Amino acid sequence: VPPRGIHHLGVAVEDLDEALATYERLFGAELEHREVVPEQGVEAAAVRVGESRVELLASLGADTPVGKFLANRGPGMHHVAYEVDDLRETLAHLARSGAELIDDEPRQGLFGLEVAFVHPHAVHGVLSEVVANG
Amino acid sequence: VPPRGIHHLGVAVEDLDEALATYERLFGAELEHREVVPEQGVEAAAVRVGESRVELLASLGADTPVGKFLANRGPGMHHVAYEVDDLRETLAHLARSGAELIDDEPRQGLFGLEVAFVHPHAVHGVLSEVVANG
Repeated sequence: VPPRGIHHLGVAVEDLDEALATYERLFGAELEHREVVPEQGVEAAAVRVGESRVELLASLGADTPVGKFLANRGPGMHHVAYEVDDLRETLAHLARSGAELIDDEPRQGLFGLEVAFVHPHAVHGVLSEVVANG
Repeated sequence: VPPRGIHHLGVAVEDLDEALATYERLFGAELEHREVVPEQGVEAAAVRVGESRVELLASLGADTPVGKFLANRGPGMHHVAYEVDDLRETLAHLARSGAELIDDEPRQGLFGLEVAFVHPHAVHGVLSEVVANG
């Protein structure tokens, strides 16, 4: 069963308030959720742009995944997440298809979502996430 | 009037056939359009992943925008495109909002779409495109 579509685009930003203001001003974005997740070293805001969703990710420190990404690449697109109906079935399909998984099992992602990440090497350099359809 | 949502995610790839095969195998992607555009130095394939769309972009040479992107950053996410109802109105809004535009006027993009690009500096490092709703 293929994904339903893009659940969100994840974007690494230097300053969450500034980025939120930019997306609101330019694209009429509306804040959906915002939370600090110390375990993941991130402060995140999910915004709706029309029917789509962008997840803005600010680092809580240099030694976090988003902090390292920002140091290496600067702000920009970080990952894309696809929404699927059955996360375990999707992970089994991806593993059978030879895709290297970062998460073999579903885990809790931001905003209480069940998620898993696929290694960018498996998707031509694109860090790809699968998210359970809530 | 805000965008309707994400029209497509643009991804730079080294080998278009391999990338198509990967997106088909992992995400059940279905090919929508494919074309070579010598003026833009690109061979592009638009695929549907569920209700969403990914645009795979291969370079026709090192001295093209996608070729330079690949040389600098490697394969990965290149731009995000938002679908809007009125492209001229959107460009006027973006200009009034202080966003630096790459294209002040709509121009023809891939697959016959009317498009314009916003400079990544205006969107925290994300090359952003606006696409007229066909």
